[in-house]
Amino acid sequence: MAAFELDPKLAADTAEIERWDLCCVLLMNDANYPWLILVPARVGLRDFHDLAAADLPVMTAEIVRASKTLEALFKPIKLNVAALGNQVPQLHIHVIARRSDDPAWPKPVWGAVPAEAYDDAARAARIAQLREAFARF
Amino acid sequence: MAAFELDPKLAADTAEIERWDLCCVLLMNDANYPWLILVPARVGLRDFHDLAAADLPVMTAEIVRASKTLEALFKPIKLNVAALGNQVPQLHIHVIARRSDDPAWPKPVWGAVPAEAYDDAARAARIAQLREAFARF
Repeated sequence: MAAFELDPKLAADTAEIERWDLCCVLLMNDANYPWLILVPARVGLRDFHDLAAADLPVMTAEIVRASKTLEALFKPIKLNVAALGNQVPQLHIHVIARRSDDPAWPKPVWGAVPAEAYDDAARAARIAQLREAFARF
Repeated sequence: MAAFELDPKLAADTAEIERWDLCCVLLMNDANYPWLILVPARVGLRDFHDLAAADLPVMTAEIVRASKTLEALFKPIKLNVAALGNQVPQLHIHVIARRSDDPAWPKPVWGAVPAEAYDDAARAARIAQLREAFARF
């Protein structure tokens, strides 16, 4: 059986924060928004409904955990939760904290403005902040 | 306790197909894409993680049911599943069957091209087709 491998484009666009029971938890390299990507570490998934029945409640719990963490840290006006995958077919779930003064609001973030890469120090600080907060949810 | 009411903008943009255990199942009035919207019939929800713990597995099952139905009917290249709510804060989940020849592909559908309203006969036929298919999932 093939081992799970993160899609190369997802790997290039993100930094790994940590691994949960089901998902790789990634930070999107775009400082415009607090933006997590959850990737179930399972081979061959494309769509949400491809998840095994036993994985669905874990997926849901991990979406809720990511959402509550972003809410606590960033006080967003709205959380966006989405499995799109038009560009990268490997199943991945975006969890994005939106603010009314972010550069895409109220439009969806995808394609709205060019990504603003974190510098090394800012990325490390954001990852540390998220790890500390995840421990509370 | 207030009764659940569908957001007026959601009501204006959709037609009700049926009611499931948790959600109102709506057809988006845009013939560009097979596009369902699931609205949990609960008062005061904004984000996915606002769902009560007991409702989460029902929500997940209803997303899977909607997805499998669209997959069986339309053989999409990808299902898009998303809770955004930047325009309408009431929690609602989009389930959209994407084709590589649809007018937005591979971009997200929101704002890509103007909605193409169904005429009455086409809308009635689409609703009948979906009801028949839902019965099998």
